[in-house]
Amino acid sequence: MARREPKTRNTRERLLSSALDAFSTKGYASTSIDDIAKAAGTTRGAFYYYFSDKADIARDLQQDLWRSIAERAQSVFDPSLDTLSNIKRAFATHLSEVNQLESVRLFLREGFLDPTLEASGRVELEWGFDLIREYLADAMDKGEIGRLEPTALAGILTGLFEVATDRALAAGDPVSITEVVNALLDGLVPSEQPANLAQLRRIR
Amino acid sequence: MARREPKTRNTRERLLSSALDAFSTKGYASTSIDDIAKAAGTTRGAFYYYFSDKADIARDLQQDLWRSIAERAQSVFDPSLDTLSNIKRAFATHLSEVNQLESVRLFLREGFLDPTLEASGRVELEWGFDLIREYLADAMDKGEIGRLEPTALAGILTGLFEVATDRALAAGDPVSITEVVNALLDGLVPSEQPANLAQLRRIR
Repeated sequence: MARREPKTRNTRERLLSSALDAFSTKGYASTSIDDIAKAAGTTRGAFYYYFSDKADIARDLQQDLWRSIAERAQSVFDPSLDTLSNIKRAFATHLSEVNQLESVRLFLREGFLDPTLEASGRVELEWGFDLIREYLADAMDKGEIGRLEPTALAGILTGLFEVATDRALAAGDPVSITEVVNALLDGLVPSEQPANLAQLRRIR
Repeated sequence: MARREPKTRNTRERLLSSALDAFSTKGYASTSIDDIAKAAGTTRGAFYYYFSDKADIARDLQQDLWRSIAERAQSVFDPSLDTLSNIKRAFATHLSEVNQLESVRLFLREGFLDPTLEASGRVELEWGFDLIREYLADAMDKGEIGRLEPTALAGILTGLFEVATDRALAAGDPVSITEVVNALLDGLVPSEQPANLAQLRRIR
């Protein structure tokens, strides 16, 4: 998130910024609404004007963070490359972005662990489902990946990325995890087979 | 779980059996301790003698269910087959077992969704972590699968199986999901390369 000078930001932005600082340093559970309001130089009343409770502001922050990570990951898509290469590039960027957000990594991970926050993290990961499903369906038509049930494949892949993100947030080293994900993705390359058999499978 | 005649079972077993029936038909959240005690022909006092609360008896049931599924999956391991084939067989058996437990499928899925139950499901899935990690390390040494960081690989694979189990419990059709998992696992087959390069990579 871009940081602006306090005086130029409105109360809602100051509350968001203070909450992110507090969640990242003290942790979500240990931060009170009073902590956030005080750090933002405002009141509990102002907090409740903008947010219904602590989970509400945390979900907004998580959504902003995941959205900016997703935008970076989507920005590396290159239409001149094949689908699997693009998925690998996007996912490696995603994990690397997650890892670079050192100061908010624990807070991001809390989005996986705290049941009241988990849903918002999942919502942001949904961008992956639609994007990947669309790319996968195209890639099957082009013969770049083998025929599989597209919804099952998209569901498993987004789940796999979620698991990998969780592991990277916990372990803090995205390289080994990216290598494992890339190897698994290579399994989607169609095995060589006679063209007419491939045709039959597609029709079935 | 094997059903015995009520008269030959002790109170704890009757409570477990009644709880499983109630959780499977009414759902975990809608079942009270009184419901369980009444159906077992006993009292709240007896319930609290054996279990600390509703989550406690549910965790015991989840553990029993996951353990019996895991035992069936492990039983199909065949030492004469390669590691990837064994993992595929075990996982296909696992998903098929999960799916066959029609009456308790919703309760099993609640083990993923309810935060107080989730941990016990995770514990049972841990059998997968140790088993798979050991098999994967062996398989890397034998050259059956490519070199990857074993802990990262085992972590991602157990997470992948957890995701696939969750999707199968939700969707109720394990076949497409098994096909997707098998395709991804095929990505672990080492790519063909000169023997001395493979050797170098192993040493590095």
